[in-house]
Amino acid sequence: MAHHPHAFLPGASKRLEALSDGVFAIACTLLVLEIEIPEFEKDTSLTQQWMEFCHAQLPSLLAFIFSFLNILIFWVNHDAINKVIARYDTKTTYLNIIFLLFISLIPFTTAFLRNNIDSFLANACYGLVLCLASTVAVWMYHHLAFKAKLFLPEVTMASRKRVYKQVISGPFLFLIAIGAGLLSNYISIVIYALTPISFMFLPQLDFDSKEEEIKKEHNE
Amino acid sequence: MAHHPHAFLPGASKRLEALSDGVFAIACTLLVLEIEIPEFEKDTSLTQQWMEFCHAQLPSLLAFIFSFLNILIFWVNHDAINKVIARYDTKTTYLNIIFLLFISLIPFTTAFLRNNIDSFLANACYGLVLCLASTVAVWMYHHLAFKAKLFLPEVTMASRKRVYKQVISGPFLFLIAIGAGLLSNYISIVIYALTPISFMFLPQLDFDSKEEEIKKEHNE
Amino acid sequence: MAHHPHAFLPGASKRLEALSDGVFAIACTLLVLEIEIPEFEKDTSLTQQWMEFCHAQLPSLLAFIFSFLNILIFWVNHDAINKVIARYDTKTTYLNIIFLLFISLIPFTTAFLRNNIDSFLANACYGLVLCLASTVAVWMYHHLAFKAKLFLPEVTMASRKRVYKQVISGPFLFLIAIGAGLLSNYISIVIYALTPISFMFLPQLDFDSKEEEIKKEHNE
Amino acid sequence: MAHHPHAFLPGASKRLEALSDGVFAIACTLLVLEIEIPEFEKDTSLTQQWMEFCHAQLPSLLAFIFSFLNILIFWVNHDAINKVIARYDTKTTYLNIIFLLFISLIPFTTAFLRNNIDSFLANACYGLVLCLASTVAVWMYHHLAFKAKLFLPEVTMASRKRVYKQVISGPFLFLIAIGAGLLSNYISIVIYALTPISFMFLPQLDFDSKEEEIKKEHNE
Repeated sequence: MAHHPHAFLPGASKRLEALSDGVFAIACTLLVLEIEIPEFEKDTSLTQQWMEFCHAQLPSLLAFIFSFLNILIFWVNHDAINKVIARYDTKTTYLNIIFLLFISLIPFTTAFLRNNIDSFLANACYGLVLCLASTVAVWMYHHLAFKAKLFLPEVTMASRKRVYKQVISGPFLFLIAIGAGLLSNYISIVIYALTPISFMFLPQLDFDSKEEEIKKEHNE
Repeated sequence: MAHHPHAFLPGASKRLEALSDGVFAIACTLLVLEIEIPEFEKDTSLTQQWMEFCHAQLPSLLAFIFSFLNILIFWVNHDAINKVIARYDTKTTYLNIIFLLFISLIPFTTAFLRNNIDSFLANACYGLVLCLASTVAVWMYHHLAFKAKLFLPEVTMASRKRVYKQVISGPFLFLIAIGAGLLSNYISIVIYALTPISFMFLPQLDFDSKEEEIKKEHNE
Repeated sequence: MAHHPHAFLPGASKRLEALSDGVFAIACTLLVLEIEIPEFEKDTSLTQQWMEFCHAQLPSLLAFIFSFLNILIFWVNHDAINKVIARYDTKTTYLNIIFLLFISLIPFTTAFLRNNIDSFLANACYGLVLCLASTVAVWMYHHLAFKAKLFLPEVTMASRKRVYKQVISGPFLFLIAIGAGLLSNYISIVIYALTPISFMFLPQLDFDSKEEEIKKEHNE
Repeated sequence: MAHHPHAFLPGASKRLEALSDGVFAIACTLLVLEIEIPEFEKDTSLTQQWMEFCHAQLPSLLAFIFSFLNILIFWVNHDAINKVIARYDTKTTYLNIIFLLFISLIPFTTAFLRNNIDSFLANACYGLVLCLASTVAVWMYHHLAFKAKLFLPEVTMASRKRVYKQVISGPFLFLIAIGAGLLSNYISIVIYALTPISFMFLPQLDFDSKEEEIKKEHNE
C-alpha cells in the first residue's frame, strides 16, 4: 500500500520558513539601496547641507522606515501563524510563494511612490501590492485554520475565528486607502501607516488544555 | 580502522539546503532591482502616466512575476526531492552548486530578454539557462534516485521512475522553446510559461509501508 | 481553560534569529555594492593606476572594512545574548525589529560619510544610527535580563549586571563621537573605531551550578 | 561556582553557520548584478548582436562563473570543517568573521579585474583577496584542529595533518599567481582557476572507530 506523507516528513516546513525569512530579510534590506547617497559640494554650509538632505534624502528615509516596518509586521504575523501549523500542504506552499511575490514587490512600489508622491497611479500601485499581499495572507489563514485544518488541534476554534475577524479587515482597509488617494495621497499614507499598527495587536490564538489532555490520554 | 562518515553526520544536509534557500531567495528578490523606477513629470495627466507605466514598467513587472514563479517552482521541486534524501555525497553537492549557478543567472537573462523582446539571441540565452538548470536538476535526480541510491529506502522504485519520466521532459521542452524562437519569440515565451506549470503537478513519490515495516523489524 | 504558550512553542526563537542573521548578512555584504568599480584608461602606468585607486577606491574599501566589522560585532553580541534566552515575548520581537532597522541603515550612512568625509551632517548621521542601534540593543538587554526575566534562570544576576554596566556605555560613546565631530570628523572616526573593539571583550555571563542543581532537583 | 559554558549551549554553532551561509549565498549571487544588461538597437542583425554580446557580456559571464565556483568551493570546505567541530570559541568566531570579510570582497575584485583585464593592479587585488581569505581559512583550521583542539575527538590526528598539508599550499599558490601577473595576467588567471580545483579534492578527515568505542564505554 502506498501513501503520500511528504508534508509529514521532518523538516517539511523548515525550508518554506527559511525561504520566507530570506525573502523578508532581503526585501526589507534592499529598500536601503533605493536611497540616493548625497554628495555635497565643497563650499556648502551645514544649513545648506541640512536643507539639501531634508529635501532629497528625508522622504526616502521615511519611506524606508515605513516599508521596513510594514514588511516586518507581515513577518511577525507570518511567524505567529507558522508556530501553530502542524503541517503544510501543496496549496499552502503555492499561496505562500504568491504571498512572497507581493512582499518582494514592496521595495519597487515604495521607491515608485517616493519619486511620485502626488501621483494617484503610484499611490494605487503601493496600496494594491499591500492589498494583494494581505488578501493572499487571509486566504492562506482561512485555508490553514478552517478548510484544510492544518493547525495544531489544540488551537481553539473560537480564537481562530477571533483572529480571522480582524485579519479579514486588512484587504478592505488597503482598498479604502487606494480610494482615499482620489482625494489626497496623504490620507492614503495615513491609512497605510495605521493599518499595520492594527495588525501588531492581533488577538492571540488560545490553546485548549482539555483537548491537549484528551490528546495526551489518546497517545498513551 | 578508519571510515568516512562525513555525509552521515547530523546537519550534513542542513547547510546545503540553507545555502540553496539563500541563493533561491536572493535570485528571486534581486529581480525587483531590474525594474526601473518611473519618475513622472509634474504636469502629466493620469492617462499619460498610465500609458507611460504600461510602456516602461509593465513588461518589467510581467518579466519579474514570470521569472519569480519560475525560480520558485524549481525551489518547490528541489525541496520535494530533498525531503526524501537520506544523505548527500560529494557529487550531489557539486551538482547542486552548478544548479545554483544557473538559478542565479536567471535575473540576468530575464532583464536581457525584457530589454530585447524581439532578439533571438536574448530569447535563446533565457531558454538556455532554464534548459541547463533543468538538465542539472534531472542529472541530480537520476544520481540520487537510481545511481547512488541516496533516497530513503522506503521510497518505491515505481514512483521514482514515474517522477523521472516527467522531469526528463523539462530540458527538451526548453530546447523546443529556443527553436520556436526562430519563428517568433512569443511562441517561446508561451512554452517558457507552460513548462513550469507542468512541473507544479509532478507525481508524488510513494512510500512503501511494507518496506517500512521490514525496516522497523530489522531495527528492533 | 485557555492559555497563551506561543513563545514556548519549539522554534519560537529560531525564526527571529534566522531573520536577524539574514538582515546582518545582507547589510554587511551590500556594503560592497557601494564601492565604485574602477576602469583605468588604456595608457595609464601602474603608478598612475595605484594613485587613482588610492584616491577613489581606498576610502571606500576602508569604510567597507570598518562598517563590516562594526555590523558583525553587533552580531556577535546579539548571538551571545540569544544563547541564554529561555524564550521571547512580543516586546523583544519588536525591539529586535527596530534594532534590525538601524543595522540595515548602516550601508547608507557608511556611503554617506565616505562621500562627504568633512561634513558634520554625514558624520552625525553615521554616529546617530550606531547610537540608536546600541540604545535599542541596551533596552532589549535590560528587558530580557532584568524586567521580563527571559534569560535562563541559571545565569547569575551578578554577571547580568556586570555586562549591563559595560553595554550601557555604548550609546554615550557614540554621542561623544558625534559631539567630537564639531572639532574634527577624524576624532569621531577614531571613537567609532574604538567603541566596537570595547564590545569585543564584554564580560561573560556566568552560570550558577547551584541554581542549576536546585532546578534539577525541583524537576525530579 | 561559576563557569562559562557559552560555546557548549545548543545552537552555539548554528548561527555562525547561518550567518556564513547567508554571506556566501549573497556574495555569489550579487556577482550577477555586475553583468551589464545589453540593449541592442532595432536594426542589428543576429551576427552583430552575437559579436556585441561576445565583446561586452561574455567576459562578465566568464568572470561570474569563475568567481561563483571559487566562492562555493570555499563554502564546500568551510562546510566540511564545520561538520567535525565539537564547539566554537571566541577566536574561531572572529577568524570566521574576517574570513567572511574577504569572501564578501570577491564581487568587487571580480568586477575590478574584468574591467581592467590587463592591469597588474586589478590582478594583484583579485589574488590578494583570495590569498588573504585562504590564509585566514588555514589559520582557522590550524586553531580548530591542533591548537584549541575543538574538533570531535574521534577525528584522527593523521588525517588532520594530511588535510593541513594540502590546505597550507593555498595562500602560496595565490601569491605565485600574483607574481605571475608581472609576466602576464593570463598566467595568473590559469592559476586562479586551477587552485580551487585542487581544493575540490581534499583528503577526507578519518574517524577512529576505536576512539569512538572507548568514548562510548567511557560514557556508559
